[in-house]
Amino acid sequence: MTEFQPLDPGYEARTRDSFARQGIMQTLGAELTRVEPGLVEIVLPFRPGLAQQHGFFHAGVTATIGDSAGGYAAFTLFPAEATVLTVEYKINLMAPGDGQRLRALGRVFKTGRTLTICDVEVFVEKDGRERPCAKLLQTLMRLDGRPDAPAG
Amino acid sequence: MTEFQPLDPGYEARTRDSFARQGIMQTLGAELTRVEPGLVEIVLPFRPGLAQQHGFFHAGVTATIGDSAGGYAAFTLFPAEATVLTVEYKINLMAPGDGQRLRALGRVFKTGRTLTICDVEVFVEKDGRERPCAKLLQTLMRLDGRPDAPAG
Amino acid sequence: MTEFQPLDPGYEARTRDSFARQGIMQTLGAELTRVEPGLVEIVLPFRPGLAQQHGFFHAGVTATIGDSAGGYAAFTLFPAEATVLTVEYKINLMAPGDGQRLRALGRVFKTGRTLTICDVEVFVEKDGRERPCAKLLQTLMRLDGRPDAPAG
Amino acid sequence: MTEFQPLDPGYEARTRDSFARQGIMQTLGAELTRVEPGLVEIVLPFRPGLAQQHGFFHAGVTATIGDSAGGYAAFTLFPAEATVLTVEYKINLMAPGDGQRLRALGRVFKTGRTLTICDVEVFVEKDGRERPCAKLLQTLMRLDGRPDAPAG
Repeated sequence: MTEFQPLDPGYEARTRDSFARQGIMQTLGAELTRVEPGLVEIVLPFRPGLAQQHGFFHAGVTATIGDSAGGYAAFTLFPAEATVLTVEYKINLMAPGDGQRLRALGRVFKTGRTLTICDVEVFVEKDGRERPCAKLLQTLMRLDGRPDAPAG
Repeated sequence: MTEFQPLDPGYEARTRDSFARQGIMQTLGAELTRVEPGLVEIVLPFRPGLAQQHGFFHAGVTATIGDSAGGYAAFTLFPAEATVLTVEYKINLMAPGDGQRLRALGRVFKTGRTLTICDVEVFVEKDGRERPCAKLLQTLMRLDGRPDAPAG
Repeated sequence: MTEFQPLDPGYEARTRDSFARQGIMQTLGAELTRVEPGLVEIVLPFRPGLAQQHGFFHAGVTATIGDSAGGYAAFTLFPAEATVLTVEYKINLMAPGDGQRLRALGRVFKTGRTLTICDVEVFVEKDGRERPCAKLLQTLMRLDGRPDAPAG
Repeated sequence: MTEFQPLDPGYEARTRDSFARQGIMQTLGAELTRVEPGLVEIVLPFRPGLAQQHGFFHAGVTATIGDSAGGYAAFTLFPAEATVLTVEYKINLMAPGDGQRLRALGRVFKTGRTLTICDVEVFVEKDGRERPCAKLLQTLMRLDGRPDAPAG
């Protein structure tokens, strides 16, 4: 567990519910594997429909799950009636996405009233061995009074 | 047309062939609409399977076609026997991806022997009106002696 | 002139006054040469005290005037009773800062209620010829109700 | 000490010598306080000549020592006959540089034959208490066969 105290005790259910509404995560086949205060993990198995021209995970796919991992890490610390927006991020792709599985680990680095900064690492697993393949530094915005979920 | 002179007269066919081998582009439904020296355009129609939790294009999808637009813009200027690798990029998401279509326009800003810098803009079209929704500043690496296409 | 309409007709005096209060600009020897709505230019002559180990402008110096050029470009469009804060930027250094003068040109790319995105280019002039040496993509925050200048 | 093995046993003297040749470090008043394999620390006391318009450290100054801390962290792992170039970095400024001293800590995150990725944190100390004020994610290039020091 991380050092952060969530404002909303229902942060995990709220995060899992939001993730489940992201159509792209189902299209890619991504799974939400850890939800803790200020930390979210997403894993994604390889298939050719996620590849770039050399048969590795496309960098955009790596970025997509990295972006969601960081965004939801920030979201876990928000009040119940707020949603999250990615302002910007920078990603370094330090190794090809050559493997059977990606794992993105998003962590909150600094929280603020409006902006949250996250540090995200993405690992690629090949034949049982994992290595870092990408690193993101990301800025998220908290939008208060705008519930993330549609009114039921 | 842009001001750049391609090293390889077959740059367009080479670029279209590489794009066609990116499985993720088919999974998303992206189409390569312009290939000029130092400039590439990709368009992508909306569907719920590309959305984030509010039903807009997921930022990762925006980034994915932006990354490919910039990467292939660099690729058009490479010699025939070279491939391209995204070193890193930074993306600012300045408006929600709320619309029926994304259009990514990648342009080479500066070429170097090893590194190429691209400037990419992504627009979202809603009800016939387009507006900028993202901007990328991207660093690409040219890998010489490594043909992009598999040996036939 | 740019296409932007300033909210404060006194934007130029307000910007020049703020620049004059930046001690670092005097330490470096930087000069504010253009102030237009959404556009600011800063120039800086070389001297060895601004160099890195090879005798060229240090990248941090390039970044410093680039950051101020973008920050003040955003500032020109703010209301009178607001100040500006750099949230983050990314800089690509595409050529060594080898020359007699740097010129940073900051332009607003997109304004928002809270955040402004700027695109900044920095050029180095050597023997009368200028070429691009850096490019920044920058996010600024507008802080309302906090005048930039100290109460007099 | 970090986990990295330097290629050049004389890495510390080589790094200190290069730092001493950066005129801007003397202009700012920065001091090199730690040099270990893959890790470099730089500290900088405040004075008004380093300030932005509110009397805090200018973000460009924060970036300058952050950039050098990361660049020299990479440099410690290079062979003796190589120099270092900053390709690009992204910096998040998460708190005002309000204090008496800045401390930049640069660490190598990933080494490669050509490119090295560094993670840099900058802290500001005020009245004996330190807090993070900036974070950089940086790409450096190793230039082989080009000694950093001038021929003697």
